[in-house]
Amino acid sequence: MTNATSQGDSRRRAVVLLSGGLDSATALAVARLEGFETYAISFDYGQRHRFELESARRVGAAGGVVRHIVFPLDLRAFGGSALTADIAVPKDRSEEEMGVGIPITYVPARNTVFLSVALGWAETLGAWDLFIGVNAVDYSGYPDCRPEFVEAFTAMANLATKASAEGRARWRVHAPLIHLTKAGIIELGTRLGVDYGLTHSCYDPDPAGRSCGHCDSCRLRLKGFAEAGLTDPVEYAA
Amino acid sequence: MTNATSQGDSRRRAVVLLSGGLDSATALAVARLEGFETYAISFDYGQRHRFELESARRVGAAGGVVRHIVFPLDLRAFGGSALTADIAVPKDRSEEEMGVGIPITYVPARNTVFLSVALGWAETLGAWDLFIGVNAVDYSGYPDCRPEFVEAFTAMANLATKASAEGRARWRVHAPLIHLTKAGIIELGTRLGVDYGLTHSCYDPDPAGRSCGHCDSCRLRLKGFAEAGLTDPVEYAA
Repeated sequence: MTNATSQGDSRRRAVVLLSGGLDSATALAVARLEGFETYAISFDYGQRHRFELESARRVGAAGGVVRHIVFPLDLRAFGGSALTADIAVPKDRSEEEMGVGIPITYVPARNTVFLSVALGWAETLGAWDLFIGVNAVDYSGYPDCRPEFVEAFTAMANLATKASAEGRARWRVHAPLIHLTKAGIIELGTRLGVDYGLTHSCYDPDPAGRSCGHCDSCRLRLKGFAEAGLTDPVEYAA
Repeated sequence: MTNATSQGDSRRRAVVLLSGGLDSATALAVARLEGFETYAISFDYGQRHRFELESARRVGAAGGVVRHIVFPLDLRAFGGSALTADIAVPKDRSEEEMGVGIPITYVPARNTVFLSVALGWAETLGAWDLFIGVNAVDYSGYPDCRPEFVEAFTAMANLATKASAEGRARWRVHAPLIHLTKAGIIELGTRLGVDYGLTHSCYDPDPAGRSCGHCDSCRLRLKGFAEAGLTDPVEYAA
């Protein structure tokens, strides 16, 4: 047996889903705070811009991950989302508008697919803990960001894998930000030393990678920094 | 609204996971029998040989699928399985040996990943039914072939997607072969007109694509045909 659990005092390993955004950077910092040796996975799923993946690489390196893989996963074959298809990103929506229904930036079954791939990688690593930066407060529109989804995924994982079937592992999916506001996430990450200048949130950056300041993601981010009494270190287009 | 459910009397759509093997070919035939308009998805996950995917294409075409996509998913990054890494395929094992523990041909979280991607595609198609040819009888070693796994995946799916969150859909994962023996599957498919000569089961074919007759998959297949009183139409190496 060469799996991690048989190596006595080796540190527990965790796989962290790293998007390059503010939330997953904070989730990585929480995983380290809890003593995990961290492995990061990002997905190249046909994002319209590559700044997200560049940010993910920088965040992982700064966060001390042991290994970081970028997994190609071409969800463009599905169509149907502003993040992967050619649909205009909504701008300057009010909080009420943002809160109504499911955003058009929804990608079908995205977190299900990402967690499933992370689960497979984690099993080969002997890592029984997954960290995901989902949040049910600011983005209540995404069904796969809710606590009941995370719980159902965990229950499924514990029936799906060799490690759990053989009783060697009990999967845990950590969603440490799920009940925090954006301001609360930023306050937490700032205390843990996260450099938010490395992260990227904008759905519609300019060619130089500067954030637009007007899409839902920028507005939630700016509001979060404002409520936390902090200044967002990323650059915004004039 | 342009989704299928709003189109009145349009036929119900189903996504069928098609591997090119005997089981998924039969599951496709069951989906058609139940009246579904079928969409097939196969995965190019770094199989050691390509005969599986060629068989999947032939089976899909013969089975009348509306559309067939081959989704690239490079699980080789994970390692740890005879089907994707350079580990010898076991030969001429007894049924007792085959039945002990989880086969080394296990790929971590494979069915979880495949079903998750199929779920995403199905949501964009307005297809709320998934068909998977898993079987708990002959391959009890695979944890993600058990009924409790299929049920847990379905419960998770119903919390994961926009369609279910908005009450437009209730996901169903059909595993019509789950309680059948290999002989029972072959009898069912034969009644439904499946051409098993198009399928491929061998883990270790020769360069011409002929089956070895000695790996676990060939032995279960040959035993199934024998018990069904039928002759396997695929070609075996001498």
